[in-house]
Amino acid sequence: MQLPRLNGPDFSPGSVWLVGAGPGDPGLLTLHAVHALAQADVVVHDALVPEEILSLAPRARLEMAGKRAGGIRTQQLRINLRLIRLAQQGLRVVRLKGGDPLIFGRGGEEALALAAALIPFRIVPGISAGIGGTAAAGIPLTHRGLARSVAFATGHDSSGDLADVDWHALSRGSEVLVFYMAQRRIGQIADRLVEAGRSPNDVIALISNATRPDQDVRMATLATAADATADIAPGAATLIVTGPVLALRPLLADWQQTEPMTVSHSNTPQQATG
Amino acid sequence: MQLPRLNGPDFSPGSVWLVGAGPGDPGLLTLHAVHALAQADVVVHDALVPEEILSLAPRARLEMAGKRAGGIRTQQLRINLRLIRLAQQGLRVVRLKGGDPLIFGRGGEEALALAAALIPFRIVPGISAGIGGTAAAGIPLTHRGLARSVAFATGHDSSGDLADVDWHALSRGSEVLVFYMAQRRIGQIADRLVEAGRSPNDVIALISNATRPDQDVRMATLATAADATADIAPGAATLIVTGPVLALRPLLADWQQTEPMTVSHSNTPQQATG
Repeated sequence: MQLPRLNGPDFSPGSVWLVGAGPGDPGLLTLHAVHALAQADVVVHDALVPEEILSLAPRARLEMAGKRAGGIRTQQLRINLRLIRLAQQGLRVVRLKGGDPLIFGRGGEEALALAAALIPFRIVPGISAGIGGTAAAGIPLTHRGLARSVAFATGHDSSGDLADVDWHALSRGSEVLVFYMAQRRIGQIADRLVEAGRSPNDVIALISNATRPDQDVRMATLATAADATADIAPGAATLIVTGPVLALRPLLADWQQTEPMTVSHSNTPQQATG
Repeated sequence: MQLPRLNGPDFSPGSVWLVGAGPGDPGLLTLHAVHALAQADVVVHDALVPEEILSLAPRARLEMAGKRAGGIRTQQLRINLRLIRLAQQGLRVVRLKGGDPLIFGRGGEEALALAAALIPFRIVPGISAGIGGTAAAGIPLTHRGLARSVAFATGHDSSGDLADVDWHALSRGSEVLVFYMAQRRIGQIADRLVEAGRSPNDVIALISNATRPDQDVRMATLATAADATADIAPGAATLIVTGPVLALRPLLADWQQTEPMTVSHSNTPQQATG
């Protein structure tokens, strides 16, 4: 069988691609992401990106970002400078982030720094955890007759405190709410939503390590949210989802296929497919 | 160079995969999507999916969905039944949709129908236009200090009328708002947002045919929105984006690389890379 050929855009030495790795399943990588990883000289990656995905960059030196001391702002400045430095060395640099670079991924800050330093860059969107993780859990974020809008919000601000948002407006503005990085503030978020008028009996889903082999989906209510999460590992990335679409999950979750793609490294040359 | 091998999950005869095709650039397809297309016996696709992406299903019969007469509900029921019928014939069925199947894509309705008919199915998330299209236009949907939440909403309900939403709450609930399929209701949406308290001088971006060769990004304000869109082709899928993050676009859009991936069909066998 004659397979079509995919021609990726040029990834020039001295440029930086800000690449979304998706929530975890390697099958949720985009072709642009795979193309970038295959050519990268260096991959500056977040701690949460799985080994399997990193193995798709066989030529690259791997650097984990954000491990050094300092507050979040200091860390981000260091990462920005590191990306600029590596590009100035003439390397093809991939900055690899879980999910999507621009949905709570700080990709905008890195892009601004690169543009200001006149470093050519590209933003490669990824499957955001709020989209890929909810799909894997059998939750349609929008559904005719149930939800005409969905809001993605962050569970905490840059200092780690509960985000300073207008909870009443957020709660009423969209039927479906998805909170990212919510693991440390679940009880507070649930309390604010009840104060804002949602029922304590409203169902919520807590999705940790979405689309990974250790994916953990728990159902609770706004009233029981904090208790339901007491034993979630502190390092897990957890989404909170609430809204009427959760009523559909029992009709979908047990019937759908969710097996991930896997990566293997054989020792024999691959066969040509031509 | 020894390339790693990707092992896709089993796509069994008699099952249906609801696959997001992304906004248009073939490089934004996921590996699961490419894997599904390569094996599909039949692809039931939306009108907006580009030819280049359909060419990645060389074995498949192509069927365009939703062309027959009748209202949206009738059309959707016909599509649901068609998917069930094709699966019952023992085919590997891909239902291919622009963007993501569950973000205003009616994938939930199709999944419910398949589950009810005991047809095995899988939901393959895609890059939603609101994420891929805004990235290509140089707009970070979230940004520290500017936006802690983003809402995705639909420009019209299933009858084509302006969606019946709480405009005040939607406007105040999230700093950044993205309206899908907004092309026919842009003036009304802008008016409602001004009534809800946003300034008529607030900047908006209008993104049509995102990530495609004919991508069209226009900047306007809520006051000038309707005029700015008078000559957009009626068939174009247009997003409206508003929020403080638009201030960053002039710093990013002209500097970033956005060249798409292309698909070619050579007549000579491909070389082995092993």
